[in-house]
Amino acid sequence: MRESPQSTRRSFFGLAGGVALLCTIGGEEIDVSAPNGLERADRAAARVQKPLGASLKQDIPQIQPQPGGIRREYWIQAETARWAITPSGKDEWHGRATGGRNAFTAFVYRAMTPGFASYLVDHPTIPGPLLTGEVGDVLVVHFRNADTKLDQAVTMHPHGVKYNPEYDGAYMGEFTRDGGFVAPGESFTYQWECTPDSVGAWPYHDHGPNHTLNSFRGLFGAIIVREKGAKKPDRVHNLFAHQLAPPVTRLERNFHCFNGRAYAGNTPTLTARPGEDVEVNVFGQDSNFHTFHIHGHRWKDAAGAFTDNPGFGANECVRARFTEDNPGRWLYHCHVFSHQDVGMAGWYLVE
Amino acid sequence: MRESPQSTRRSFFGLAGGVALLCTIGGEEIDVSAPNGLERADRAAARVQKPLGASLKQDIPQIQPQPGGIRREYWIQAETARWAITPSGKDEWHGRATGGRNAFTAFVYRAMTPGFASYLVDHPTIPGPLLTGEVGDVLVVHFRNADTKLDQAVTMHPHGVKYNPEYDGAYMGEFTRDGGFVAPGESFTYQWECTPDSVGAWPYHDHGPNHTLNSFRGLFGAIIVREKGAKKPDRVHNLFAHQLAPPVTRLERNFHCFNGRAYAGNTPTLTARPGEDVEVNVFGQDSNFHTFHIHGHRWKDAAGAFTDNPGFGANECVRARFTEDNPGRWLYHCHVFSHQDVGMAGWYLVE
Amino acid sequence: MRESPQSTRRSFFGLAGGVALLCTIGGEEIDVSAPNGLERADRAAARVQKPLGASLKQDIPQIQPQPGGIRREYWIQAETARWAITPSGKDEWHGRATGGRNAFTAFVYRAMTPGFASYLVDHPTIPGPLLTGEVGDVLVVHFRNADTKLDQAVTMHPHGVKYNPEYDGAYMGEFTRDGGFVAPGESFTYQWECTPDSVGAWPYHDHGPNHTLNSFRGLFGAIIVREKGAKKPDRVHNLFAHQLAPPVTRLERNFHCFNGRAYAGNTPTLTARPGEDVEVNVFGQDSNFHTFHIHGHRWKDAAGAFTDNPGFGANECVRARFTEDNPGRWLYHCHVFSHQDVGMAGWYLVE
Repeated sequence: MRESPQSTRRSFFGLAGGVALLCTIGGEEIDVSAPNGLERADRAAARVQKPLGASLKQDIPQIQPQPGGIRREYWIQAETARWAITPSGKDEWHGRATGGRNAFTAFVYRAMTPGFASYLVDHPTIPGPLLTGEVGDVLVVHFRNADTKLDQAVTMHPHGVKYNPEYDGAYMGEFTRDGGFVAPGESFTYQWECTPDSVGAWPYHDHGPNHTLNSFRGLFGAIIVREKGAKKPDRVHNLFAHQLAPPVTRLERNFHCFNGRAYAGNTPTLTARPGEDVEVNVFGQDSNFHTFHIHGHRWKDAAGAFTDNPGFGANECVRARFTEDNPGRWLYHCHVFSHQDVGMAGWYLVE
Repeated sequence: MRESPQSTRRSFFGLAGGVALLCTIGGEEIDVSAPNGLERADRAAARVQKPLGASLKQDIPQIQPQPGGIRREYWIQAETARWAITPSGKDEWHGRATGGRNAFTAFVYRAMTPGFASYLVDHPTIPGPLLTGEVGDVLVVHFRNADTKLDQAVTMHPHGVKYNPEYDGAYMGEFTRDGGFVAPGESFTYQWECTPDSVGAWPYHDHGPNHTLNSFRGLFGAIIVREKGAKKPDRVHNLFAHQLAPPVTRLERNFHCFNGRAYAGNTPTLTARPGEDVEVNVFGQDSNFHTFHIHGHRWKDAAGAFTDNPGFGANECVRARFTEDNPGRWLYHCHVFSHQDVGMAGWYLVE
Repeated sequence: MRESPQSTRRSFFGLAGGVALLCTIGGEEIDVSAPNGLERADRAAARVQKPLGASLKQDIPQIQPQPGGIRREYWIQAETARWAITPSGKDEWHGRATGGRNAFTAFVYRAMTPGFASYLVDHPTIPGPLLTGEVGDVLVVHFRNADTKLDQAVTMHPHGVKYNPEYDGAYMGEFTRDGGFVAPGESFTYQWECTPDSVGAWPYHDHGPNHTLNSFRGLFGAIIVREKGAKKPDRVHNLFAHQLAPPVTRLERNFHCFNGRAYAGNTPTLTARPGEDVEVNVFGQDSNFHTFHIHGHRWKDAAGAFTDNPGFGANECVRARFTEDNPGRWLYHCHVFSHQDVGMAGWYLVE
């Protein structure tokens, strides 16, 4: 009547309930959840050859902003980084010591100064740098694959903005275009248009040959596009709901995270003051579906209905926007019971 | 080629595909799906000490209704109760005897007369009592933890309404406020405001130190807030889609339920007459995502699109509202195939 | 530290993470994922007797169209067919040979000429024939169960349209009506009304005594109802996101599909030209939740928000509609990571 050791190990190491985590990487299909699966996946990714169409020659269109718009330049590089999932060692919600190993090799986007001269922020972040624009602008993203360890191509693929195929940032085998394969040491400049139907909050993420694994490792970030001249909210919080699972982290435990951290006190502590115009953009970034609940608050969804707990899936975004009117310490969390108790929760402080 | 006995047992007892059902309970993380997990979870919950902030002193704000609003008083107590999931012993949809053990120890909210003098309804119900209000009203809920068996604190946490931190009804470790820890034998009065953005149908549920397990056991109910003076539909049906899984029930079988019952003839049989204004509010109350389908009917969703099968997640609510125009015996069910065949279905009779 | 052979096999053969695929078929509950489960399910379905109410006598209402509407007649028969999931043998996205056995016995709806005289299309299709109507029309579907192998009743159950109980096409045990049990060799004419609230895209599928298994095998299709005289888009693409899992196919591998095919180059290659009015209707047809992403494109959802990746569940439909403005080769895919890498992706070509 007891579980076998294999089963126990598998229930620890299994993603989505013991189903293999299969990744298609170039010519191979790898079960990342198998023993040595992670190493095999990375070796397969390192073997993928640069497609002919991904020449990085850059004899490609220069995208001009619309009248009144501007080119907004970002310098971003991808690199691996050691990352602690529960740096405080504590779950403040339940007053529990989280204990155990919780650091793994993440893959992150880092904001850089022009020319990749130096880090703009002195520590890695998950998500990567926030990109913002207004309708009519062009987001110009100078991207460098600066990783020296995993020896594989990565990219930046954006949602919501408009782009030519060269700027799609997607590996597509023999159909890959310039920005779809940025090998270690290489750089590429993406040019993305903020069109009228780009208004909203959107994720960007790796879409290179090993995109599933590398997105799971932390290669994602947010884009926010607003109407021309639109008033920015007083507070903008961006939260990515995602899983850091044993096949990816090689840790014993499974973590359900916001922004690479698990458990209140590690996940972002959101803040606001009464009267402020508050916006929280919440993105899915794993294979699960989630909801987003803030205690003590309600808001209008896009359809005009009131909600305090909308559902969303992978790379969808739900937006909470409200005028803050309720001081206190509040929990926010995914309301999927099996996620909220394993880390997908945090604090929202209004004072 | 055959499954091992361990595997077979696990596929019976496993929730969400063999992944451990982990609950964080005070200072501990318990795998409820493990052997004796349920008992360990309850013992852990019994060990959680009352936080200093949860004094129940009630030197807390008395919430007054808006002009024209009223205070609507409810008396509700939580208690365990023996609960049959398939009391008819039959699946009327397929004409099948359901057989087997199907009763477990549920945890339910019961409607009481003022002063907790006696039961308002002579049998336990899942969901608990329906709370209703109009914009401007205050829901005043006198709540008592009347359970004598499980020796643990429970609460009532509402969605949709507005409340001060004292009335959040959420255990938050050292940050817990008055209504967030109602120990056995104690009572507390929650005061929740029906604000303009409270209009809709919302769940309430336990949010004490053992909230996931106790919500799974049946500690949930519905709140409906309408505009001031809004016409009530002729029929209002509230359905909670949820799983009663072996780790929680300690039964051999897994049940996908509406309102604590599985299979047509046990789940609520909804009724209406042609010409009536019908409202069905459907809530998620487990870790799964669901859809809600009624045969022979369609309605407009909040966005103005027509639907007969909207999706929803944990503690989300989707509302069907239509003028009845189609006499007959109709199936309603979750359209997730793996749920509908294992109990998440019922009858809608129009005559 | 290695998985047992049993576990490995189960992770291949398991649906939804090792949880049994339970189907209720008449008086029995069958675990289709067990060894010989498929055969046992089909034998159970063959044993289900025709309910008294399913007389097929057709002394039932003839449905007349509204003024200005018409009766649109279709002839459709259900039959089993050998079906290749990856006929090209290649995943064009990653340039990978897919290899391995990929053909199984599907159950499909086939378009026929009047009187079931001959096939309208010379090969089986998944999904079945597209049914279209305008508000005021009646869809008259002459349906025949032409299968000679599985010896079980099937039906057609539509979403979105209005119908009398006789035309529900749902097996309901002793409550079954005429169209809810069409035995091998029998035929039945369904009559479905396109009402004002039928506007949209909807699935139809088997709802006979073995509906889950037979829907999983391919017995589904699409209905599109438009406003009277509404302009049809220049391009209409209908995609069903569904899983062909080992318990159903008895193949070694699990496939996540669009329209019965897995991997780009096998799934439908969508096409359009710049300036065209493009509509893509995407339906869920398994037990999972999905999202639908097209690279390089955005559109307005029903609520008026912009999206490029909406979520949906079983038998829900999300619609992308936009004026094509972005030439190139684009990926479309479900953004659930564990689906996109195992086949749920395809090409969208704009030139």
